[in-house]
Amino acid sequence: MAENKLNRDKTITKWIDEISRGIIEKKDAQLEIEQKTSANDLVTNMDKWVEKELVERIRSSYPEDRILGEEGFGDSVVNMDGTVWFVDPIDGTLNFILQNENYALMLSVFENGEPVQSYIYDVTLNKLYAAIKGEGVSCNGQPIKSPKDVSLSEGMLATNSSIMTEDKYDAIRKIARKSLGLRLVGSAGLETVEVVKGSVAAYIATNLKPWDIAPGVLFMEELGMRATQFDSKPLDLLKNNNIVFATPKAHEEIIRLINL
Amino acid sequence: MAENKLNRDKTITKWIDEISRGIIEKKDAQLEIEQKTSANDLVTNMDKWVEKELVERIRSSYPEDRILGEEGFGDSVVNMDGTVWFVDPIDGTLNFILQNENYALMLSVFENGEPVQSYIYDVTLNKLYAAIKGEGVSCNGQPIKSPKDVSLSEGMLATNSSIMTEDKYDAIRKIARKSLGLRLVGSAGLETVEVVKGSVAAYIATNLKPWDIAPGVLFMEELGMRATQFDSKPLDLLKNNNIVFATPKAHEEIIRLINL
Repeated sequence: MAENKLNRDKTITKWIDEISRGIIEKKDAQLEIEQKTSANDLVTNMDKWVEKELVERIRSSYPEDRILGEEGFGDSVVNMDGTVWFVDPIDGTLNFILQNENYALMLSVFENGEPVQSYIYDVTLNKLYAAIKGEGVSCNGQPIKSPKDVSLSEGMLATNSSIMTEDKYDAIRKIARKSLGLRLVGSAGLETVEVVKGSVAAYIATNLKPWDIAPGVLFMEELGMRATQFDSKPLDLLKNNNIVFATPKAHEEIIRLINL
Repeated sequence: MAENKLNRDKTITKWIDEISRGIIEKKDAQLEIEQKTSANDLVTNMDKWVEKELVERIRSSYPEDRILGEEGFGDSVVNMDGTVWFVDPIDGTLNFILQNENYALMLSVFENGEPVQSYIYDVTLNKLYAAIKGEGVSCNGQPIKSPKDVSLSEGMLATNSSIMTEDKYDAIRKIARKSLGLRLVGSAGLETVEVVKGSVAAYIATNLKPWDIAPGVLFMEELGMRATQFDSKPLDLLKNNNIVFATPKAHEEIIRLINL
């Protein structure tokens, strides 16, 4: 691994360790909840605290880099020039509030638009999934092999609530019937992990934010899997995306069915 | 706790411990998969081994009792007289095969139609949820308190793939929009646990088998929650059921919406 990636990997791993301890310590005593755009779009003081802690550390160690974070403590990023960090302090905030599990801290680094390092940390299970450009994917340091290239009918499908409930997605919802079954965790990061582990053949979701999907790009790339928009174009990390993360076979089927 | 329930609780806990070790030891070396009614209705040699082991132990320790088990090693049970055991050796067989997690071993005991003891064991997380008539609910021996009586719009909704994908459930699927979000684990036992922990306000599912839902009856009862069919009648453990497990408030709303 190139020296700068290796050092940055050690640094990021240390940050995630420090900050996730803080989440667990502070959470029960101090949780404050605010509504953002709707009743199921919430933010807590912990989301803000985690993002602030991460942004401060990035700015201090890598002052020239730019940061795009969910809670707005980063920069206004309008292009992918240079080194850009994506920060999702708590992915799955509803789960964090209502379940106290099934949420993740996510971070990824892009250099001139190319993903070079991605991290998804399942806080309650203490599992850190990492992808490093050219070095593959690991969980707590143990390498993860590429899942089998299963078709949609040989695997399960992870998705989000909107696809399963909104009228406008009636046609897309039918894709789900081709799979062996649906799974829905409620955290884009942990659904990405399901694809990484081969627990599902694909993850399809609508209207995801850049920080929800940024880590998935490199995870899919390193495992020989696919990450695109519904129209099969590459993800655009400067706007919201409808995404398909999948095995090559399932990806081809889903793209064809979505665009019928 | 009455002496016989206390002894039986110790015995069942020991059995679950012994047999679940066997699952983990034998699984990777020896998994054989057969299709039952469809591509997503599978059985493995491990489902059969677990049920055989449980049925042998029950017959040996409680020779007068009858057993209704998923894989058919028990009895043909046509009424609920006397003591009846429900056995689901591996609930969530698809998860067991494809994910190697998110599956449960389940067991429950009824006396003259009344539930007296129920067990849901999350094998990979090593969490044994138990409900004992009049004694409440516990996880690994630690008592679980009744979740807050939230309405559907204040909580999430667990469901099954059929409701979310089949045309005939279009009307029922709309109920999902009233909740904060959907969750789908793919194991009736572990979805029951989600209701028990208050992680979701309700679990609705169609066409579940007696052994899928038998443990839930006592879990809901002991926590002051509701377990009924879609028409609000009590569960009928001698046939398949469409079920609602929920907080009292969410149950009332769901039954009203289903029967509009």
